[in-house]
Amino acid sequence: MKVRVDVMLRPGVLDPQGAAVRAALGNLGFEGVNAVRQGKVIELDLAEEDPEAARAQATEMAEKLLANLVIESYRVEI
Amino acid sequence: MKVRVDVMLRPGVLDPQGAAVRAALGNLGFEGVNAVRQGKVIELDLAEEDPEAARAQATEMAEKLLANLVIESYRVEI
Repeated sequence: MKVRVDVMLRPGVLDPQGAAVRAALGNLGFEGVNAVRQGKVIELDLAEEDPEAARAQATEMAEKLLANLVIESYRVEI
Repeated sequence: MKVRVDVMLRPGVLDPQGAAVRAALGNLGFEGVNAVRQGKVIELDLAEEDPEAARAQATEMAEKLLANLVIESYRVEI
């Protein structure tokens, strides 16, 4: 089944990609952009078909590989 | 208001990041990972408070800057 893991920088951690996007939007004439944060989304296609087991597997993957927990937080969505 | 734009490579476009994640998961002993696709998530904090206007604004931002429509598709979520 498909599982999706979002990985975002924690609040307070400098996000140069987000700052670059915000500046570029301003240069293109978009106004009213208060803040931009950029993160990663990882879509996993797992053989596991049980939602709770798949969620547990994806959580372990996020903790071990997908997110750097010092500076990033993650969210698992089924 | 907060708007979220997901940008993923279109199906069929080679995704080396996803392939690297899949290989790394295999090396860590995770089995049953059929496929991995990696994309970007951009969280926008817009001054616009009307949901439909914010969606329209984010869609224009995605078309003009956030996604390369030749190889990427996007989804706007309020």
